[in-house]
Amino acid sequence: MQDDEQEIRQLVSTWLAASKAGDVEQVLSLMADDVVFLVAGRPPMRKADFAAAARLQAGADAPQFDGISEIQEIKILGDWAFMWTKLTVVVTPPKDAQPTTRAGHTLSILKKQNGKWVLARDANMLAPVVK
Amino acid sequence: MQDDEQEIRQLVSTWLAASKAGDVEQVLSLMADDVVFLVAGRPPMRKADFAAAARLQAGADAPQFDGISEIQEIKILGDWAFMWTKLTVVVTPPKDAQPTTRAGHTLSILKKQNGKWVLARDANMLAPVVK
Repeated sequence: MQDDEQEIRQLVSTWLAASKAGDVEQVLSLMADDVVFLVAGRPPMRKADFAAAARLQAGADAPQFDGISEIQEIKILGDWAFMWTKLTVVVTPPKDAQPTTRAGHTLSILKKQNGKWVLARDANMLAPVVK
Repeated sequence: MQDDEQEIRQLVSTWLAASKAGDVEQVLSLMADDVVFLVAGRPPMRKADFAAAARLQAGADAPQFDGISEIQEIKILGDWAFMWTKLTVVVTPPKDAQPTTRAGHTLSILKKQNGKWVLARDANMLAPVVK
């Protein structure tokens, strides 16, 4: 149990670091093939949609991404788990444009496949932070 | 497994019917004592907050509530489960004011306590529907 929780915390750290580095392939390796991302105002996003959007954004003119996750709860349920976090994401577009900050909560389902935890379902409730 | 899924579908139906009827006590009986509701732009809401808000809204001048839930997935994990739905909520204020519609997805964690399924964590990604 303790190890599983630690591995899930590591998954979150790796996800944020890979996103910051623009390493799309590593981010994709951290999610299940049947992952579902849910956000307000958009249809559910699957892994192929995520990959297409992330690859489109990657490259020389990619926005700079920085995320801070404060994990509020992790509950292990055998080979499944759920977690909710407080997440802040700062995106800085190229060419000295103003960064935008979004913050809010996430609720995620994770599963252990082939001995490794991956993201399986994700609810993202981030909203723009007005300064 | 089949029975558990059926009981969770019944929980959703009962929740919507009780909300429509303004039966705050019944809605409260369908959630765990440590329930957490997550929405964009607001701090996490606990059971006491939910009860206070619901009781404040109840009464003669209460808005009329109508909800339609389309369950997309239910996964039973022993005495826990997760579910995601497509939810549409129409709220009609009193005195012939215009109804407002919000729609989007929810991701919920449920648990079985004393043989009965209750809501334990809830992520609400509903957004206003512009007509």
